[in-house]
Amino acid sequence: MKYYDPQTLSFLLSDVHHLDELLKSERYAAYDKASIDLLLDAVKDFSDTALFPYIQEMDEKPSVFKNGRVHVHEQFGPILKKAGEMGLVSAAMNEEGGGLQMPMLVVNALYFIMEAANNHVTGYLGLTAGAANVILTFGSEALKQKYVPNMLSMQWGGTMCLTEPQAGSSLSDITASAKPLDNGSYSIKGQKIFISASDHQFADNFIHLVLARIEGAPAGTKGISLFVVPQYHVNDDGSKGEYNHVDVVGEFVKLGQRGYCTNHLSFGDGGESAGYLIGDANHGLSYMFQLMNEARIATGRMGTGIASAAYYASLEYAKERPQGRKLQSSGKKDPTAEQTLIINHPDVKRMLLHQKATVEGCLSLVLQCSYYLDKYATTSSAEKNKYHQLTEILNPVAKTYPSEAGKDAVDTGLQILGGYGYMMDFILQQYLRDIRIISIYEGTTGIQSLDLLGRKVTMNKGEALQLLAKEMENTILAAMEKEELKGYAITLGESSQLIQSCLGHLVPFAMKGNHEKYLADATLFMDLFSTIVIGWQWLKMGLAALNQSDETFKAGKLNTLDYFFKYEMSRCKGLQKTICSDSEVTINMGEEMF
Amino acid sequence: MKYYDPQTLSFLLSDVHHLDELLKSERYAAYDKASIDLLLDAVKDFSDTALFPYIQEMDEKPSVFKNGRVHVHEQFGPILKKAGEMGLVSAAMNEEGGGLQMPMLVVNALYFIMEAANNHVTGYLGLTAGAANVILTFGSEALKQKYVPNMLSMQWGGTMCLTEPQAGSSLSDITASAKPLDNGSYSIKGQKIFISASDHQFADNFIHLVLARIEGAPAGTKGISLFVVPQYHVNDDGSKGEYNHVDVVGEFVKLGQRGYCTNHLSFGDGGESAGYLIGDANHGLSYMFQLMNEARIATGRMGTGIASAAYYASLEYAKERPQGRKLQSSGKKDPTAEQTLIINHPDVKRMLLHQKATVEGCLSLVLQCSYYLDKYATTSSAEKNKYHQLTEILNPVAKTYPSEAGKDAVDTGLQILGGYGYMMDFILQQYLRDIRIISIYEGTTGIQSLDLLGRKVTMNKGEALQLLAKEMENTILAAMEKEELKGYAITLGESSQLIQSCLGHLVPFAMKGNHEKYLADATLFMDLFSTIVIGWQWLKMGLAALNQSDETFKAGKLNTLDYFFKYEMSRCKGLQKTICSDSEVTINMGEEMF
Repeated sequence: MKYYDPQTLSFLLSDVHHLDELLKSERYAAYDKASIDLLLDAVKDFSDTALFPYIQEMDEKPSVFKNGRVHVHEQFGPILKKAGEMGLVSAAMNEEGGGLQMPMLVVNALYFIMEAANNHVTGYLGLTAGAANVILTFGSEALKQKYVPNMLSMQWGGTMCLTEPQAGSSLSDITASAKPLDNGSYSIKGQKIFISASDHQFADNFIHLVLARIEGAPAGTKGISLFVVPQYHVNDDGSKGEYNHVDVVGEFVKLGQRGYCTNHLSFGDGGESAGYLIGDANHGLSYMFQLMNEARIATGRMGTGIASAAYYASLEYAKERPQGRKLQSSGKKDPTAEQTLIINHPDVKRMLLHQKATVEGCLSLVLQCSYYLDKYATTSSAEKNKYHQLTEILNPVAKTYPSEAGKDAVDTGLQILGGYGYMMDFILQQYLRDIRIISIYEGTTGIQSLDLLGRKVTMNKGEALQLLAKEMENTILAAMEKEELKGYAITLGESSQLIQSCLGHLVPFAMKGNHEKYLADATLFMDLFSTIVIGWQWLKMGLAALNQSDETFKAGKLNTLDYFFKYEMSRCKGLQKTICSDSEVTINMGEEMF
Repeated sequence: MKYYDPQTLSFLLSDVHHLDELLKSERYAAYDKASIDLLLDAVKDFSDTALFPYIQEMDEKPSVFKNGRVHVHEQFGPILKKAGEMGLVSAAMNEEGGGLQMPMLVVNALYFIMEAANNHVTGYLGLTAGAANVILTFGSEALKQKYVPNMLSMQWGGTMCLTEPQAGSSLSDITASAKPLDNGSYSIKGQKIFISASDHQFADNFIHLVLARIEGAPAGTKGISLFVVPQYHVNDDGSKGEYNHVDVVGEFVKLGQRGYCTNHLSFGDGGESAGYLIGDANHGLSYMFQLMNEARIATGRMGTGIASAAYYASLEYAKERPQGRKLQSSGKKDPTAEQTLIINHPDVKRMLLHQKATVEGCLSLVLQCSYYLDKYATTSSAEKNKYHQLTEILNPVAKTYPSEAGKDAVDTGLQILGGYGYMMDFILQQYLRDIRIISIYEGTTGIQSLDLLGRKVTMNKGEALQLLAKEMENTILAAMEKEELKGYAITLGESSQLIQSCLGHLVPFAMKGNHEKYLADATLFMDLFSTIVIGWQWLKMGLAALNQSDETFKAGKLNTLDYFFKYEMSRCKGLQKTICSDSEVTINMGEEMF
């Protein structure tokens, strides 16, 4: 029952991403290495006993919508209760808001463990945490006191309600309305779809964060406000009040993550749904972005977790399944010799290395982002800008690479099992179904890629990109000093020039107002950019691995680095060629020609 | 309800793959262009009315194993009956064996239509046809007369029984045994798994082709014989006799293709299973290879069909779904403007082009192989070798490219639908589940790649490769004459040099007896090789498109060719770099390092 590697996680936290350095800051004074280790052990234990044993069952007995309510797997009762007690919801929040104020580096490590064990669970926790954090950051004192404490204990669930049937990814088109009432609250009306974790039998109440337009607000995203809309009113003494007419009108039956419910909500249909404005009117989207940015890293982390579980499932099979024989020097096989285990076939090793390189590369990136978030939270204001910019530019990458490469890795893992991989009694097919949503949640790959190329790369005159290039350069310079890593360092340096080459080709189109051409291959730019970023992470891991005393562990990391540069970095030049091609086929192809 | 494009199919048959030329041969004298068009129409009509309407239902109400029998969806009753009546099982077979002796070019076109409509159906027909054809080709007169006629009418089903639990892809390890009986038949004993279409309520009998070892046979593949083992004995008057103890002991519950049953069979467990030797003892595998080669092309064709259906499902959605806006020259969007249809976003067009390029490229390759098979069947013996070699080298490619690229294309198609793509009430998720088996059936991608690099490329001193290079060169030379195609022709020529470069790097390892190194990246070689082959097919399609009078159709083909060269051919150089890398990481990585 291995679904992640504790030694690798510990290596990433301590040796690659400087946990010790973070723990020296005042913000994290409550923690030391020993207490973090206890936390990691406790969450592993929780995951071993309460999460992993139920992953297949949650798929086979999915959440069910009946009589207006959603019923999830019974195991969610003890899970959510325990997670609240363990402080997993409040882990990242400030002490003054009732949180445990852990480094994000640690919080994301803990959630990664849980997600690798059971990816149907963490969404319930993460959305509640994220919604509570929005209220804590932007809400009034009254809203904080009324709603946050019961969210942190998981007695109540939290959600983010953005998507509407007619709008999809296009938030400027949302039409949910908010009409001011005399008491300062608003009457909310509208439909929200794909709302995850928005109902189940193990919470007394749901606190929805809802994007809506106050009557008369400007068109587009500048007219969107954010509201707290509880499923049930909360009385002043904290007890549960009247129904607030947030109806669950249906559940979406999904290909995977079937234990994690996704619902269609209707506000204000059978009666008034009161909503309470967060912060200023018409600034809702900017508040929501705090949660969206958290959710994007969390989504990438979730993809990483699923890919990790799939990797260890494939590895276990490959180590146990005898099939075929090694070739002799004649090129023939000796049929009378014993069969070999499939892990001894180079093609199987290649597939396992693909999985390992993806899982650990993605995990390192998620933790890299976490480190920057922690630095942002702990450094002087002069340095804050740097870490903010780095977080901003890496955010869409941390969402996208794990979702796309993670999906490929799970798919590869299924292939290792051959025919058995396609059978419902082996778990690989479930992981493949589960991970397929990750590149759609929280903004599809296309949306993330537009964000990266259309916004993050160019913002502040390219400052974020320059800061990231500097970070990569530091790693390259350090690696150039090491004989074992010099070749990779040179390759990474050359590859990162490809980003400049693409921008040199593309930016003039944007300058001339041809934004369609500028952005047409944004998804390929994301592929190129993110592959280089993961190459950077592998080089960082290589540097840290050199100092490891466990020779097997060290060799495993250096070989996987070698795999990544041989098999993945080699794609970069072709991507650059495509991006810099003169062809405008994806613009010119007429609808009628398909 | 569009799942393939009749105009494209007709273009491929007539303008790209020379149906008219084939029809001039004596072998196909019974057919002319008009009769072929009638056949295509009849199968389209059958597919529209009897197949496509049931594809989702066959997934939702899958085949079920109960009381030792498999029960498939009720619609299979009329489907199989009608398919038998229409001659779809006997279509490719020689007239003397009771077949319709159609060109394979046409047969594969007809099956492609059916597969695009409903991929759960054709396996029942194709396996029965293939098994009957093995009996016709290698069996005794008595076996032919006894078994074949009822198979051709689909009253009886046929199967291929190769895989065993302990052997998987490694046929040299099969242990099913055959003990000679006094009457010239054999007593068969053993377990066979993953046996598709091997039981259902709509056939009176199943005629299994079983690989087994006669007692005392040599180890490995040289000791394998092939037997006809009917589920029920057949009396001399043709009536159904006693049970022959071929037990269905279980059904495999699969991720997809759930209407197409896959079972575990046990021979000779509760009583004697009589088997009848086909051809000579210990030559069974070579006979089975006829069926395996047919099944490999059929599997690639099936992947193509699924990808085609997915393409048209995505296209329909993209043409109907409004979302987002086109960018203005300021780089901003006007939120008061009307939403645009998503097909107008370049990223969506890119995804649709990916689907279209894959579907039509794969279909063209399948038909290219069919053309070569037909030329083999109709040319003088001097030319036969050429077409045999071409068929041999393209066979693993026609199996693999549609399964791998087809899977990616369906996955891309799902992404176009965003969140809806992940929902069970949209069909994309089903196509993704259905197509996932294609790269596993009939030899995984790893196995096909070993066949290509380890056997097909080097056999007869590379003759097949040279013949294929010559075919590609002919296309390149013709395209060099056309201004519109010259650039692609040059790229294809350069890319095909990469194959030589890889072999120049790899072959010396084989010469020195280092076959492990030679074959370690066979799967990447397949990726490179097959991408170039599909590029060749697109260049052929481009040449034929230039003569089309329908300007929209022509522009669609030329744009898709452009897509393929911009986005897919650009990967070749990176693949070559990986293949020619000095790193031996997939050999050196120790089991303990994962």
